[in-house]
Amino acid sequence: MEHLQNDLLLRAARGEQVERVPVWMMRQAGRILAEYRAVRAKAGSFIKLATTPELAAEVTIQPVDILGVDAAIIFSDILVVPEAMGLPYIMEEKVGPIFPTTIQSMADVEQLLVPDPHEKLAYVIDAIKIVKQELNGRVPLIGFAGAPFTLLCYMIEGKGSKTFSKAKKALYSEEVLSHALLQKITDTTIAYLKAQIAAGANIVQIFDSWAGILSPEQYRTYSLPYIAQICDAITEVPVTVFAKGAFFAREDMGKLNCETIGLDWNMDIAESRRLIGNSKTLQGNLDPCVLYASYDEIKKHTITIIEQFGTQRYIANLGHGVYPDTDPDKVKCFIDTVKGYGL
Amino acid sequence: MEHLQNDLLLRAARGEQVERVPVWMMRQAGRILAEYRAVRAKAGSFIKLATTPELAAEVTIQPVDILGVDAAIIFSDILVVPEAMGLPYIMEEKVGPIFPTTIQSMADVEQLLVPDPHEKLAYVIDAIKIVKQELNGRVPLIGFAGAPFTLLCYMIEGKGSKTFSKAKKALYSEEVLSHALLQKITDTTIAYLKAQIAAGANIVQIFDSWAGILSPEQYRTYSLPYIAQICDAITEVPVTVFAKGAFFAREDMGKLNCETIGLDWNMDIAESRRLIGNSKTLQGNLDPCVLYASYDEIKKHTITIIEQFGTQRYIANLGHGVYPDTDPDKVKCFIDTVKGYGL
Repeated sequence: MEHLQNDLLLRAARGEQVERVPVWMMRQAGRILAEYRAVRAKAGSFIKLATTPELAAEVTIQPVDILGVDAAIIFSDILVVPEAMGLPYIMEEKVGPIFPTTIQSMADVEQLLVPDPHEKLAYVIDAIKIVKQELNGRVPLIGFAGAPFTLLCYMIEGKGSKTFSKAKKALYSEEVLSHALLQKITDTTIAYLKAQIAAGANIVQIFDSWAGILSPEQYRTYSLPYIAQICDAITEVPVTVFAKGAFFAREDMGKLNCETIGLDWNMDIAESRRLIGNSKTLQGNLDPCVLYASYDEIKKHTITIIEQFGTQRYIANLGHGVYPDTDPDKVKCFIDTVKGYGL
Repeated sequence: MEHLQNDLLLRAARGEQVERVPVWMMRQAGRILAEYRAVRAKAGSFIKLATTPELAAEVTIQPVDILGVDAAIIFSDILVVPEAMGLPYIMEEKVGPIFPTTIQSMADVEQLLVPDPHEKLAYVIDAIKIVKQELNGRVPLIGFAGAPFTLLCYMIEGKGSKTFSKAKKALYSEEVLSHALLQKITDTTIAYLKAQIAAGANIVQIFDSWAGILSPEQYRTYSLPYIAQICDAITEVPVTVFAKGAFFAREDMGKLNCETIGLDWNMDIAESRRLIGNSKTLQGNLDPCVLYASYDEIKKHTITIIEQFGTQRYIANLGHGVYPDTDPDKVKCFIDTVKGYGL
């Protein structure tokens, strides 16, 4: 059994007593750090960086060294899963991901693979192994995947969208196709997360980034059941579910077979605790824009949310990925305020 | 006093008994109609269309004739207000609105006008007068304006954005500037809505399109108080407030001095009624993507929401503007289903 020097995040996730609140940030391995931008420039492209294990490992560890966070999260992208299933994407500067081929028919769904992650996603698994070696037990490593519904959005729409109306059109008009696609993504995701865990991920997070575009009824039909399948299948390590915008599903999420629920900054903390219940750890939910404020304001906002969440069954984080133009010193102020709280 | 042949919408807004549920659609005067696209092509540009009273009036009335809705809404744009205050915008095809000059300092705020709407927004007022004459009492006319916070977003950010992080940065770092700007927009908006009402608008709607990017605390600080000022100032006609994504503010919105609250499709109907209370009419909240489904599914979803809302103190509508690629026959199916309900 692995010995971690700092296992605060894992203990908080499991609901065990912690001496202080653990903290990390979504997108901590990214453009906020000059050190990341240097490696990204060396790689030449985002996809090259994500698919080169040594480089992905390097940027994964940077925030542990530079920012002092209590966990690393493997540098990757949720869209590696569609790619491994047979739908490659390109990352266009200032536009985002684009899928030249999209899912439009049942025949398209049938052509998709449920790949062996050790084959098609070996570069992620290899990156995890390098990270584990280089971290050498300093902090836990977080693995992750996109929620099946969020991946369906990209696979049908073909690119980012404010409304994802093409993807939602499929939910309303192609019920059988939608469920078949979601099941295939779910099967792939379970195998992928298990491979991440076998390679050393100590906890995994499911990102349902586009949850907020669905009505409560559609969320219960097309997203939650597949997240539930994943939660039920992952028994090896704690699971975190972060469904951005799914305020309406908090009560249902309290019943998932997972340890931690992520909250965005729209969600009231006390109300979320009441809806989700006391058996889950909560993670989040500082507005990423707070990090644009003065140091004093950042400290004040950080302390306020810790006091609202309480120091147990809580993992400090932002309510969304850190914005790329955030000053790393402001980020450090947030992290240091959490780490200093109550000490 | 004006005699309206169909005043269902106004009676529903005021909480009076109605024989059947009134129905209209946000963005009903728009790209879904071939007849709109023809006038838009003739005008040459969106802004030309919006600033030419005869053409704006023509597209305002089209959905009354073609779709049979129970109200017209004046064809215009929320960004005419910043323009009248001294910040012109351009509308770029496939990109959206862009402000070449933005608000960055207190000096910028001080330079903004609180214009006389009869002077700087005469084209809207003139369009309303033409519409009233041509409608000739068939249905009520809805006037509108953007909520001060939503306009602040564009005036600081300079364009549409997923996060409006520059605008939110101002809220967290430039409190005095933010409040000064919001107050100036509020003063302009009150005068503008009063001019719309004097010209014949029978009800006005405030669109807080970007409400959903704020934390509950920031919403209470930077948006709600200014909407409240507008609601308090408009005593002539009923007021509708539609704050997309502000699920967390529903209880507070129930206390506004307005008649109707719009709901987006994320908001559970029974929960919204409980949070808002029984003294407001509710409007919405069909997912615009339902109109991509089959006719049978559209009927089923429409009847389901009417049964959830009830037939009194309810105005049928989508939970957002109708998407431009929606088939007008599907739109008509929604409208006819509402109009036929219970008859």
